[in-house]
Amino acid sequence: MKALKVGIIGFGTVGTGVYNVLQDFKDIEIKKIAVKNINKKRNIENFDETLLTDNPYEIVNNPEIGVVIEVAGGVNPTYDVLKTAIQNKKHIVTANKELLAKEGSELFRLAKENGVIILYEAAVAGGIPIIMPIKTILCANKITKIAAILNGTTNYILTKMGEKELSYDVALKQAQELGYAETDPTGDVEGFDTAYKIAILSTISFNKKVNINKIYREGITKITAQDIKAAKELGYTIKLIALGQVVEDGKVDVRVHPMLVAKKHLLAKVKNATNSIMLTGKPVGELVFTGAGAGAEPTASSVVGDLLVLASELEASNHPLPQAICNHTEIADQIDIGDTFNEYYIAINASNNPGAIGVIGTICGKNNINISTIMQKGTKDDNTAEIVVITERSKESDVQNALQELLKSECIKKIDNLLRVMN
Amino acid sequence: MKALKVGIIGFGTVGTGVYNVLQDFKDIEIKKIAVKNINKKRNIENFDETLLTDNPYEIVNNPEIGVVIEVAGGVNPTYDVLKTAIQNKKHIVTANKELLAKEGSELFRLAKENGVIILYEAAVAGGIPIIMPIKTILCANKITKIAAILNGTTNYILTKMGEKELSYDVALKQAQELGYAETDPTGDVEGFDTAYKIAILSTISFNKKVNINKIYREGITKITAQDIKAAKELGYTIKLIALGQVVEDGKVDVRVHPMLVAKKHLLAKVKNATNSIMLTGKPVGELVFTGAGAGAEPTASSVVGDLLVLASELEASNHPLPQAICNHTEIADQIDIGDTFNEYYIAINASNNPGAIGVIGTICGKNNINISTIMQKGTKDDNTAEIVVITERSKESDVQNALQELLKSECIKKIDNLLRVMN
Repeated sequence: MKALKVGIIGFGTVGTGVYNVLQDFKDIEIKKIAVKNINKKRNIENFDETLLTDNPYEIVNNPEIGVVIEVAGGVNPTYDVLKTAIQNKKHIVTANKELLAKEGSELFRLAKENGVIILYEAAVAGGIPIIMPIKTILCANKITKIAAILNGTTNYILTKMGEKELSYDVALKQAQELGYAETDPTGDVEGFDTAYKIAILSTISFNKKVNINKIYREGITKITAQDIKAAKELGYTIKLIALGQVVEDGKVDVRVHPMLVAKKHLLAKVKNATNSIMLTGKPVGELVFTGAGAGAEPTASSVVGDLLVLASELEASNHPLPQAICNHTEIADQIDIGDTFNEYYIAINASNNPGAIGVIGTICGKNNINISTIMQKGTKDDNTAEIVVITERSKESDVQNALQELLKSECIKKIDNLLRVMN
Repeated sequence: MKALKVGIIGFGTVGTGVYNVLQDFKDIEIKKIAVKNINKKRNIENFDETLLTDNPYEIVNNPEIGVVIEVAGGVNPTYDVLKTAIQNKKHIVTANKELLAKEGSELFRLAKENGVIILYEAAVAGGIPIIMPIKTILCANKITKIAAILNGTTNYILTKMGEKELSYDVALKQAQELGYAETDPTGDVEGFDTAYKIAILSTISFNKKVNINKIYREGITKITAQDIKAAKELGYTIKLIALGQVVEDGKVDVRVHPMLVAKKHLLAKVKNATNSIMLTGKPVGELVFTGAGAGAEPTASSVVGDLLVLASELEASNHPLPQAICNHTEIADQIDIGDTFNEYYIAINASNNPGAIGVIGTICGKNNINISTIMQKGTKDDNTAEIVVITERSKESDVQNALQELLKSECIKKIDNLLRVMN
């Protein structure tokens, strides 16, 4: 008799990857697989079509199934399906970042009430071990900061923009052709996917529930070839960074936006679709975890890893993995983007006259902003000049005020971009 | 009542670090600390001197103590002390890489027999989570390769040699003055410490007992400023690399030696005392774990992490952490260095005459060695020339034969160095 019977909900790339990997583990029996389209031809050797159902409730209501593997994604109908599974005392292994970021609190509460656990290594950074290390071997630490590249699509696009000096549109198109970006890339390029992941990571790192709706989020669509070029000249590369940190009074600062990352920084060296997570904790110091953040195989590594740990613990005990239980009763006090402190890159389009730099300097000074670098990037046909400013550490609201004031000045035509900087 | 009572053996830097971190965990009570010198003044606030003993058997024979934390190091008397602890049914948390590399098999066997477990995250790469991830979340993987920087002292020395073009002796002296190297640096610079760690890592990664005595080991003392310079010109940096890989027929190739690492490789970017482990597995692909490999605080993170996981599991169950049990019954079939395949860097001192390069080319060709780069590095006062060769992938025994043959040739004065290359 097999030790553990599982049902799989979702049979796309990741679901198929999980199915394939599980073929090597004879102690685990797949009882059912819920799919959208039961008639779709599956290209899998010796596949038993009778495993398929188009009704996920057949899995979550099946008394034989002990663990539900959910790799379907989305909130509807998955949220209700998983609530039913938990009420039926099934443990959950899921890769669903959106659902956990939005409804994790209620799911974890319900799981505790029903004495089951939810494991979700695959929900953040694909194959990179991060959730289980934070919950286990790093649990002596007070984690104070996470800075991470959590989305392969945007990192791929930014890498290509940097290497080949492509525009965003051209790089996106190439990424789509190569399968790195979806036809509708919004979830990736506008930072939603990254925001779900940093919400989950911050919540377990700081042990306080982070509200996804309070995460400041900015995507990469505004990044121009000109920004990439200016950044390169200044010794930076542009990355979409997820940031979570504890600031004064135990408040937390969680956000997603592009940043100029200094070339010597380890995150600057993470290329193409690779993900990387830099974690700062006491006593451990700084750790960096790097690897494939998506794809069938890496994601299956995390899903099946969770499942095997659960299986071996279930065999030994009725109370598996006490340290993996999530129940974040404390609500994080999240600060507003206006209250954050950053260094900034500001790209300004100004009249090509000697006064412009003076005006920028004066307005920045009035708003408590120290400029560390100012660089005129040549003039354009319309007799305007591109000016790039790098500031010292300043308050976001001061910078926003300065930008408003700059726009009122006659010699400033346009603020081309405002990006934050990581050194 | 405290949930868990522990004894600590060893109270140097790491032991004190563990003591300090444990002050934040009120559920864990330190019953006894075994030290070498009971009269030594300890610079710890509110320290209860009655905790100290100079007899570690007072800890391992104390029926109240559930877990023994061993951070004393060495094989004698620690091996016997820990065997007694295990026979007395105590779980072990240890940072002792030498003991595990040399006597791990017997300790794990004894632990299994007595129903206790040995955790040892701190034995490899200090604060970096690697042992527990391999034993838990990565357990769906077949790990095929580990390439790692596992010794902070040697990486610090090599970094300084590279940055400031220092000789080995000067860099070692600076490292000693700054506390990065010990007065007798042999254990670090000759690669013993690294060999212990790769023996442990390879054993759990390949799930076959690796024999420490069969690990080929070469330290960094032969590396010259000239090698560093030539490597830099060719686009490489020199690192002490621990390598463990599965080769044909399930044999394993485990070794420690300096390598020229291509500048774009992630391991080339690991500087100073930082450690980094690159792991290749199926399905996960390539993962890189980077962080502090030594020091009181990072090491305490791993020791206390192991302890807290153990504590929470012990509370829930009598059979904690089934997936953490080590019992490597299968012996690894380790191949000899002569049977390995590598790319090579060969530094040759030759007569400054036009025939030398021809001789090198001919002898390499005869021994099945393809040269990818050959570079004359100027002439010396004694009318000899420095010639650097980079080969394509070749068999070590062929290369050794070629070197013997080169030395018999009149125009070859000396083989200055032979290093392996990682691209």
